Amino acid sequence: MSKRLVVALSGGVGGAKLALGLSRILPADDLLVVANTGDDFEHLGLNISPDIDTLTYALAGLDNPATGWGRRDETWSFMDSIGALGGEDWFRLGDRDLALHVERTRRLRSGQTLSEVTADICRRLGIGARVVPMSDDRVRTRVRSETGWIDFQDYFVRQQCRPVVHALTFDGVTLARPHDDIMAALRSGDVRAVIVCPSNPFISVEPILAIPGIREAIAGSGAPVVAVSPIIGGQAVKGPTAKMMRELGLEASAAGVAARYGDLLDGYIIDHADADGVAAIGARVTIANTLMTSLEDREMLARVTLGAADALASRR
Amino acid sequence: MSKRLVVALSGGVGGAKLALGLSRILPADDLLVVANTGDDFEHLGLNISPDIDTLTYALAGLDNPATGWGRRDETWSFMDSIGALGGEDWFRLGDRDLALHVERTRRLRSGQTLSEVTADICRRLGIGARVVPMSDDRVRTRVRSETGWIDFQDYFVRQQCRPVVHALTFDGVTLARPHDDIMAALRSGDVRAVIVCPSNPFISVEPILAIPGIREAIAGSGAPVVAVSPIIGGQAVKGPTAKMMRELGLEASAAGVAARYGDLLDGYIIDHADADGVAAIGARVTIANTLMTSLEDREMLARVTLGAADALASRR
Repeated sequence: MSKRLVVALSGGVGGAKLALGLSRILPADDLLVVANTGDDFEHLGLNISPDIDTLTYALAGLDNPATGWGRRDETWSFMDSIGALGGEDWFRLGDRDLALHVERTRRLRSGQTLSEVTADICRRLGIGARVVPMSDDRVRTRVRSETGWIDFQDYFVRQQCRPVVHALTFDGVTLARPHDDIMAALRSGDVRAVIVCPSNPFISVEPILAIPGIREAIAGSGAPVVAVSPIIGGQAVKGPTAKMMRELGLEASAAGVAARYGDLLDGYIIDHADADGVAAIGARVTIANTLMTSLEDREMLARVTLGAADALASRR
Repeated sequence: MSKRLVVALSGGVGGAKLALGLSRILPADDLLVVANTGDDFEHLGLNISPDIDTLTYALAGLDNPATGWGRRDETWSFMDSIGALGGEDWFRLGDRDLALHVERTRRLRSGQTLSEVTADICRRLGIGARVVPMSDDRVRTRVRSETGWIDFQDYFVRQQCRPVVHALTFDGVTLARPHDDIMAALRSGDVRAVIVCPSNPFISVEPILAIPGIREAIAGSGAPVVAVSPIIGGQAVKGPTAKMMRELGLEASAAGVAARYGDLLDGYIIDHADADGVAAIGARVTIANTLMTSLEDREMLARVTLGAADALASRR
């Protein structure tokens, strides 16, 4: 009998696109999306979980196709008003988006866990797949630049990724416990594939892999691990992945990302634009269209990725 | 040398109209507006101070002339979104208005007092007059109806004042300390007038008067106390004042309000519509146009009220 569960590790925009594709071709019970929470932060007294939010909006069909983050049909009256009251206005919070942050913050303060809040909101928005935070414990990505250590959202949003990154750390990660559903899935013996979504390796995927126990559980799951390259033609589709790779002394290429993941990967999906880099990649490579513009692109890449995983499984 | 300070006791909509009138005819340093905080509540995890907000928006020229509460040029995307996430949506919070609640909540949690937050926000919005909460301590108005005691906003907004009111209480008031500025002003020997704004006596003015020390300090200030009737022609301009008076066994009239305030009042301003009730009023009555529709109405009523106070002072 074939194995059932697909575990997808995801950050925000790019990862959410593939997660949506997977959610459309798999039965709801078969997909577990593990969201990075290293980007989470407290802002204006609100608990904000950017990657969970982007996944939630994408899976609910509420995402903003123009920005990749936030909600569609958004208005900005709150942002127009907060500055005059002395509030910080460098992080853009739309009026509709704000409802999620306010309601989550209220529930967290009342004692619910982040995963409970996430599960309930996904259910209310009609999302079938499970989305779980990598951990209910606090993990915070920080970046070391010329001026010292800075909080991730300070680097990412306020300074728009301008600082040169010398190092990254995930505060709290050594004490963080992986979400129970992740470990239960990986230990179930029923994992069809572990998919590493096309998210930034350093700030989206590695925080998940750094949670004690997760990397070992992936290796022990018996499932093929297939990543989709976030680099197309030497460029990141969105965000600072390529810039960050160069700053960290790595080759800014699809092959460079595969090298970074190392023996975690069994399979790797790259774009046609990167086909001449195949020789340098240790994992088994599949060449596909990885730029997800349409909904069909998302579904097709999900099929290709699962197909690659299934092919790897059949060779074992 | 004539006395300088005008201390105005105010609730929301009606009180804020007269406070604006006073602020336009007095030097900024001469006006102290004391805001009721018995209506304050925590909602969606946010600290909301309806009367302070209405005063702030009115004095800053940001008020919504259609509703009397909230901000002008408001949008409602947050409200459109919160219900689907499981958040309560019976209390209408506009997107611009929300900026004030979020920023205040953030500051209160960081350790600022309500009066510090209020003062800073008033300054940022260019309000010259001082607006102070009656107390930085927590006071909560509750209402007893047929079904027992309920929170004020539950009665006022969720149930739209439908329950019959048998009694009111101000939880916490016996331990609440009056704001220092109120006591300093009342004890300064420099009070020109204490104005009781045309707000609901039971739920806007009496919580202020119930703070230990305030009623005595008003009496001891040596200043004339002049109220403006919130009842015009036997009707409340806005809100449940008349309904509440009948339910509490009082006469729903301008004279009934004066009787409720009793010997607190030296002077009382009533509308032309209520002129035939003069004989029943103990305080010295001035008849004026008390329906404040235009900005000129607000200024004129402020002048009439101060004039009445000055006339009372000259007779002492």
